[in-house]
Amino acid sequence: MIVISQSMFFTGPLALRSGASISDYSLAWESYGKLNADKSNAVLVCHALNASHHVAGVYEGQEKSEGWWDNMIGPGKPLDTDRFFVIGVNNLGSCFGSTGPMHTDPATGRIYGADFPVVTVEDWVDAQAALLDRLGIQRLAAVMGGSLGGMQALSWTLQYPERVGHAVVIASAPNLTAENIAFNEVARRAIVTDPDFNGGHFYEHGVIPKRGLRIARMIGHITYLSDDVMNEKFGRMLQPRAPTLPAARGSLPPERALAPPGGPAALGAVKGEANPTTYRYSTQEVEFQIESYLRYQGDKFSEYFDANTYLLITRALDYFDPARDHGGNLSLALAQATAKFLLVSFKTDWRFSPARSREMLKALLDNRRNVSYAEIDAPHGHDAFLLDDVRYVGVVHSYFERVATELGSPA
Amino acid sequence: MIVISQSMFFTGPLALRSGASISDYSLAWESYGKLNADKSNAVLVCHALNASHHVAGVYEGQEKSEGWWDNMIGPGKPLDTDRFFVIGVNNLGSCFGSTGPMHTDPATGRIYGADFPVVTVEDWVDAQAALLDRLGIQRLAAVMGGSLGGMQALSWTLQYPERVGHAVVIASAPNLTAENIAFNEVARRAIVTDPDFNGGHFYEHGVIPKRGLRIARMIGHITYLSDDVMNEKFGRMLQPRAPTLPAARGSLPPERALAPPGGPAALGAVKGEANPTTYRYSTQEVEFQIESYLRYQGDKFSEYFDANTYLLITRALDYFDPARDHGGNLSLALAQATAKFLLVSFKTDWRFSPARSREMLKALLDNRRNVSYAEIDAPHGHDAFLLDDVRYVGVVHSYFERVATELGSPA
Repeated sequence: MIVISQSMFFTGPLALRSGASISDYSLAWESYGKLNADKSNAVLVCHALNASHHVAGVYEGQEKSEGWWDNMIGPGKPLDTDRFFVIGVNNLGSCFGSTGPMHTDPATGRIYGADFPVVTVEDWVDAQAALLDRLGIQRLAAVMGGSLGGMQALSWTLQYPERVGHAVVIASAPNLTAENIAFNEVARRAIVTDPDFNGGHFYEHGVIPKRGLRIARMIGHITYLSDDVMNEKFGRMLQPRAPTLPAARGSLPPERALAPPGGPAALGAVKGEANPTTYRYSTQEVEFQIESYLRYQGDKFSEYFDANTYLLITRALDYFDPARDHGGNLSLALAQATAKFLLVSFKTDWRFSPARSREMLKALLDNRRNVSYAEIDAPHGHDAFLLDDVRYVGVVHSYFERVATELGSPA
Repeated sequence: MIVISQSMFFTGPLALRSGASISDYSLAWESYGKLNADKSNAVLVCHALNASHHVAGVYEGQEKSEGWWDNMIGPGKPLDTDRFFVIGVNNLGSCFGSTGPMHTDPATGRIYGADFPVVTVEDWVDAQAALLDRLGIQRLAAVMGGSLGGMQALSWTLQYPERVGHAVVIASAPNLTAENIAFNEVARRAIVTDPDFNGGHFYEHGVIPKRGLRIARMIGHITYLSDDVMNEKFGRMLQPRAPTLPAARGSLPPERALAPPGGPAALGAVKGEANPTTYRYSTQEVEFQIESYLRYQGDKFSEYFDANTYLLITRALDYFDPARDHGGNLSLALAQATAKFLLVSFKTDWRFSPARSREMLKALLDNRRNVSYAEIDAPHGHDAFLLDDVRYVGVVHSYFERVATELGSPA
């Protein structure tokens, strides 16, 4: 499926929850499949921290540019683009095409940097709604998202209940716990205290706070994986040593972090120690494979992700809390939702645990809403929502069969 | 109980597991209670990452200088210094009195810094044994420790089985998991990539890598607490605002991070907002109380802890793995132990979970060793081993009653 990234310009102003507003902004977006005649088959897919509007398919001539949920969305896939018109939108403040901190503030002629207004999940939903207005889509067959994307899906059902048929909320939560906020805060402090951050106006200094971004990403990665899957993938295995190469510095490609595909012998070819069993006794060099993996993930992330975007998106996570305006009572908050729901959680997800999905389940049932819930016994932690567990994929597939049937779409 | 910190000098050399050796080193130590005539009532208490030889009591004229395990150790306490002669030793490479990276290498006349040799749990045990030799103590009634201290207690039973009567291993593990190593690695990277680290020779530059130390400590703190206790203590409560003070910058005293003792009205006196319910919408200022708490903990730590010590001690944690020399078979490894054991774990400890203690339990039972095991349903996570849960304290108390009885000590 070949897709094209598009951009839609808005002269706004868009009123933000912070009290600020933003005008003259663009949203990058993509679509897959065809909008039907009565415009009833649209499904909006919301992205999480590190993703974008490029949800599915590949760009012309770029074979490896699959969208981040390409396993789930496409012709004949669980969210079937032969039946549905699927839309991905890059959120405001992100660094993948929509207006964000790297762009120029038309009011000052200066790059926004840390002055980009704080955006919330609710603001993103408003912006997505404005984009749908332009497309002439009054009502979504479904809105779907995982993690922070799931928060947007939930918020859609509260901000625009009449515009949502179904909400698919995966590996998400009705707000962050103190521990979740704590991890976000450490990541933000690593970025903000990086001397290259320059108060968030590093662009003008020609530098990037890569040290902070690396640490932020390493912390994130730990929380995306389960303890079990980390032990299975890396355990206490030592990093292969290749004395013909410079000492490992964290810039090794990811396959080096895992056992080489050809078995230990494959790495042996570089005259190193492919499967070392003795320690090298160093506090700064890579010793364990998990260290190499994390350093690689941190390095890669720091090459492409914007530091101010990281601050904005983690804050949007922190701030999301629909129950806050209802004295902390989630059942009261969700009374506004009229959509039908599919909630999915993963047993080994300790970032957004099944207990958090069950809170939403209970609040919806308290309101006698139509809700399906699946708790998947997958080993991959929070990351599971992006992976191919057959039970998980099956649940989503069946659910969209039902949505299609309700629309009267041919099976 | 007034105590005195002492120092014992060794001309060594002490052979280290890395192949290096160290000579001309000092160990800071303390003792509590009296060594009996046949020198049979000695109990060695081993410390974890952030602690020292100052285990119990206070220093003359310093009322608030209680040792880190003062609730557990002292006259009439679970480890009763009226019966036992208790010894605390600061480990080599630490920054609380024993020879470490901040000291001068006699071989070069230069401050060790990052050139301090890598030390292991086994090396520490060897150094502790040398100290006991000097005191004329051939056999310990017991060795006791929590977390990394528990690893030392376990290692004692393997390195010097004939010298240990009982081992009390609390909130510990037979090695670190990949996730444990991952958290250590992120903390180390934060320190090492701080521009003020200067390759570990920052002392010469008159700077301290405080940014890195702060991040390291914030990460550590998250892993010491349970999700539940964080939610109970901080939840999503917003930080009180005091506009007559400078904007919160993380240097607030800890009590500010919690609800003020006098209730919301107490802080209201400074004309701030004592119990704010609305967000201020900022990515860099403190918004949630958990953020203030973590920043404070990080700031405090960076004032007194040595960065090279942090690298060394986290590496000692990473490296500890007695099963490694036995093909990963812990039962084979623990066959060398002849001591009797008390193992304690805490249900909400996700850093060293009960499952890790159960691994040790199984390996000891495989060898038909005398072992007691208590799994305490305390809410405080890993930190529980330093706190006053009555069930936990009771278990330790009873165990030392038994040790005393075996020694023929009067009840």
